[in-house]
Amino acid sequence: MKIGVRVMPRKEVLDTQGRAVENTLREHGRRLNSCQVGRYVVLDLPDSSAEQAMREAREMAELVLHNPLIETFELEKL
Amino acid sequence: MKIGVRVMPRKEVLDTQGRAVENTLREHGRRLNSCQVGRYVVLDLPDSSAEQAMREAREMAELVLHNPLIETFELEKL
Repeated sequence: MKIGVRVMPRKEVLDTQGRAVENTLREHGRRLNSCQVGRYVVLDLPDSSAEQAMREAREMAELVLHNPLIETFELEKL
Repeated sequence: MKIGVRVMPRKEVLDTQGRAVENTLREHGRRLNSCQVGRYVVLDLPDSSAEQAMREAREMAELVLHNPLIETFELEKL
């Protein structure tokens, strides 16, 4: 079962990658209000119930996939 | 209007970040088949129709957000 983990910088934290992309797009004449850049991790977990897979993915995200000081994460079933 | 862009490494390309995360999770005793690591970009675009926003986001993704040699991308309305 595949679970997607979206890890994004917290609003309060300076998102340097986002700023860089924002500036580059504006230099290319594109109009945008803002832009955030984060990570996306696809976990392919051994067969188990959807509930258990989500629980395991959440533990993995808390353990190694995100830094709670500067990032938040969301899970989705793929 | 917010559009999410998920950029993932192509299957044929060695995903070094994914391998590193996979190994780390296994060292922590977690069971998983595999893991891919990509980027997630949230574009906040000026008000326009959903169709136009998707078109602009696609152009931005093709222009600067992904490297077509080694990555693929997908869009989603947030």
